[in-house]
Amino acid sequence: MLHAVILAGGGGTRLWPLSRTQYPKQFLSLLGEHTLLQQTVLRLSEAVPPQRVWIVTGKDQQHVVQSQLSTLPGMDQGPAQVLTEPMGRNTAAAIGLAAVHLQRVDPEAVMVVLPADHWIERKAAFVSLVQSSVGVAEQGMFVTLGIVPNRPETGYGYIKRGEPFSGTQLMSEAYHVERFVEKPSFHTAQEYVASGKYYWNAGIFLWRASAILQEIATYMPALHEGLMEIAHSLASDKADEVVAAIYPRLDPVSIDYGVLEKSSRIVVVPADIGWSDLGEWTAIHRLSPQDARGNTLSSNVFDLESENSFVYSSRRPIAAIGLKNLVVVDTEDALLVCDRDRVQEVKTVVQQLQTQGAEVAHTPRTVQRPWGTYTVLEEGAQFKVKRIVVFPGASLSLQLHHHRSEHWVIVRGIAQVTNGDQELLLQANQSTYIPMEAKHRLANPGTEPLEIIEVQTGSYLGEDDIVRFADLYGRASSAAKAA
Amino acid sequence: MLHAVILAGGGGTRLWPLSRTQYPKQFLSLLGEHTLLQQTVLRLSEAVPPQRVWIVTGKDQQHVVQSQLSTLPGMDQGPAQVLTEPMGRNTAAAIGLAAVHLQRVDPEAVMVVLPADHWIERKAAFVSLVQSSVGVAEQGMFVTLGIVPNRPETGYGYIKRGEPFSGTQLMSEAYHVERFVEKPSFHTAQEYVASGKYYWNAGIFLWRASAILQEIATYMPALHEGLMEIAHSLASDKADEVVAAIYPRLDPVSIDYGVLEKSSRIVVVPADIGWSDLGEWTAIHRLSPQDARGNTLSSNVFDLESENSFVYSSRRPIAAIGLKNLVVVDTEDALLVCDRDRVQEVKTVVQQLQTQGAEVAHTPRTVQRPWGTYTVLEEGAQFKVKRIVVFPGASLSLQLHHHRSEHWVIVRGIAQVTNGDQELLLQANQSTYIPMEAKHRLANPGTEPLEIIEVQTGSYLGEDDIVRFADLYGRASSAAKAA
Repeated sequence: MLHAVILAGGGGTRLWPLSRTQYPKQFLSLLGEHTLLQQTVLRLSEAVPPQRVWIVTGKDQQHVVQSQLSTLPGMDQGPAQVLTEPMGRNTAAAIGLAAVHLQRVDPEAVMVVLPADHWIERKAAFVSLVQSSVGVAEQGMFVTLGIVPNRPETGYGYIKRGEPFSGTQLMSEAYHVERFVEKPSFHTAQEYVASGKYYWNAGIFLWRASAILQEIATYMPALHEGLMEIAHSLASDKADEVVAAIYPRLDPVSIDYGVLEKSSRIVVVPADIGWSDLGEWTAIHRLSPQDARGNTLSSNVFDLESENSFVYSSRRPIAAIGLKNLVVVDTEDALLVCDRDRVQEVKTVVQQLQTQGAEVAHTPRTVQRPWGTYTVLEEGAQFKVKRIVVFPGASLSLQLHHHRSEHWVIVRGIAQVTNGDQELLLQANQSTYIPMEAKHRLANPGTEPLEIIEVQTGSYLGEDDIVRFADLYGRASSAAKAA
Repeated sequence: MLHAVILAGGGGTRLWPLSRTQYPKQFLSLLGEHTLLQQTVLRLSEAVPPQRVWIVTGKDQQHVVQSQLSTLPGMDQGPAQVLTEPMGRNTAAAIGLAAVHLQRVDPEAVMVVLPADHWIERKAAFVSLVQSSVGVAEQGMFVTLGIVPNRPETGYGYIKRGEPFSGTQLMSEAYHVERFVEKPSFHTAQEYVASGKYYWNAGIFLWRASAILQEIATYMPALHEGLMEIAHSLASDKADEVVAAIYPRLDPVSIDYGVLEKSSRIVVVPADIGWSDLGEWTAIHRLSPQDARGNTLSSNVFDLESENSFVYSSRRPIAAIGLKNLVVVDTEDALLVCDRDRVQEVKTVVQQLQTQGAEVAHTPRTVQRPWGTYTVLEEGAQFKVKRIVVFPGASLSLQLHHHRSEHWVIVRGIAQVTNGDQELLLQANQSTYIPMEAKHRLANPGTEPLEIIEVQTGSYLGEDDIVRFADLYGRASSAAKAA
């Protein structure tokens, strides 16, 4: 059976300020209604039903993944599997972890590995290539889709094809891989494109789970050993603990470097599928609808004769007057204004912001939690105002604060509130007061989202002033994380 | 005695989004710590003490003027007089109104007329010119400071000098005025500057109050008649009513057009004082400190090699990458990004926004009231969150709302609350609930500002859902204005 393994870990800096290190671009709706992660799942749905979709992500992002999947059609019939890594250890570990899980449920499993944050314009062509490559994977080969290049891009690795592959059961063109090459100079990239023998490495692979584990055993024995320990723990209730113990010891190595560049069984299938890694703002601009002057402008942008510019507004009205080749991305808490030819340097800015400990590099203004979201509306010397949304059926932890009191005003939905010894059921326009040191809990027993305004007052208002007594999401032991 | 008359009416569009039609640029701190209005008062203080400063402004902006004056040194000893107009009727009416008031308290008064929103770099030279011009005004002449032009500006009117003025008591150069000329073409402006006989008309004048009233009687008899009616009412308690009745009938005419262009007694005193009307963002940029690449950047701007750009941030961090000749002005609720050569078109955008009824053209995010300020932090379908600041000793009106309830959480200072039949004294971390239809009032009996977070809930949350029963600021009769 064909399974999909979607790699949704990693941080995002190049599409800042919309992406943040803790909220990377796979979670954003950059092109179209669905997020890139959702599009990755939907695009495959003809070939792989939700029950056979596996998503590998970080522990911190697990709830965002689950929340985004839960709204997709078909997900109620059998949700995708979400595999969490305690920390990122590059693609070899993530793929190995998925392979171990797949083998357990389906020893003959073929897996197609996909990044969660890419764009594919020609979806039917893509699905058809994946389906026609399954037979090759079943022969024990390692298939990679090689993107037919349309420009001498210096930002990608390339795959050089060798002799034609003559295996059975492949409908389309395919070649043995002669070698993988690193990001080239512009001149070399021009030669690659002109030769017609090179493809972009998009990180899209097909193989048997068993075959990639064997290859990992050959070329990355330490990783294989760790994966086997994890495999043995899967039937027990110790699986999470074992993963948590093994992961920190793993070397962060890519599957390309660790395995594929060494293996002799790689086949490249040329893919002319309108692929983009959406690696910077100009890629988004290129793929977005444009006006007659080449601009992509949000609906609340007032433009006077700008040209070739991308102006994105989250909320605020923007006046754009006579802009040329400019990228403007406006969010609630940060603004980017950038020459279109220098969008690669957004990364540099985010790194500088990180160095300075600027929160705006890491966290979006609306923070995702397993139970819902919160948004800080205002911070003063001794107070903080938050809008809190709790998903239907969800609950924050039972908790207390040493340094702050909280005033809650319900503005939508129904709240079940534990406040010291009291249990209250509150609706819109009702409120309650949580004194300092009082054990309290907020839950949503209803079927629509619960929304409250929280006014905190106190001398210290950090997210780390929290003692958790009980938590649906396994966070009760950690005193250092926010509610 | 020399009195100063500062004209602080009028709306602001050219420095949008920092200025708004209801919050024009004289109220902004654009260059230095003080606002332009405050600087206008301070600049004169050696020549004119606060007791002899008269400020003419709109009724809606009176409280902002008073609030800005109250923090200036010397204002506790005797505050400036604030004269309010029920509506703007251009400079002839505003100057006439001030002259009528001045004549009553000081029949020999000489008045120096000054716009509230201009910049003067060489303050001592300016004060010295004003002082040395008083004697000429005392001879019954009309003095205007003519700015020595340093470029062929097409945005200003010019004054052509005639024969040298040989009156007594003037230390500096002075000329009879040959004529006032309208904004010229670029070519004509070049000729003007080259000739050395033309000056910019900056709207700075000196004359006796009695003399300008006589000249108004000659050239603008209808205005004079209205002013005399106002003059007669000043001793009575009907003064406000009379002004309110007369103003709508007055023609909105400038003093230049209505009087000065017709009078033969005008003297121009050349003034090389580093004057600017701060008419657009590039003027602010020119006068601000710049880095080695010619940029003026707020402290939370991360810049990578921008050039000749002005980037202003109210709060949010901004990444600026490779900008060239750009103006970026970021506020909480609107953003401007504009080619430096097209800043004149900001006005066009604001006019378009006004046409579309966009609030962001008119009102700043933090709205000034006689009693303090409010800021909308968040608006949802059935709720609104505000931060409200009440000045020490101030009080909102006694009021009720038909369609909303309000939850108040005090976060700073002391609140005296009327809530139906209850009278409460609340401090930080206390709260109260104002049900729909309950008469209520919020006051600050303390000596520090009172700050509360208000959460409104209801089906209709417009500012016009208010019934006022009693108000310190004379607003109880109007049901259509906000608290």
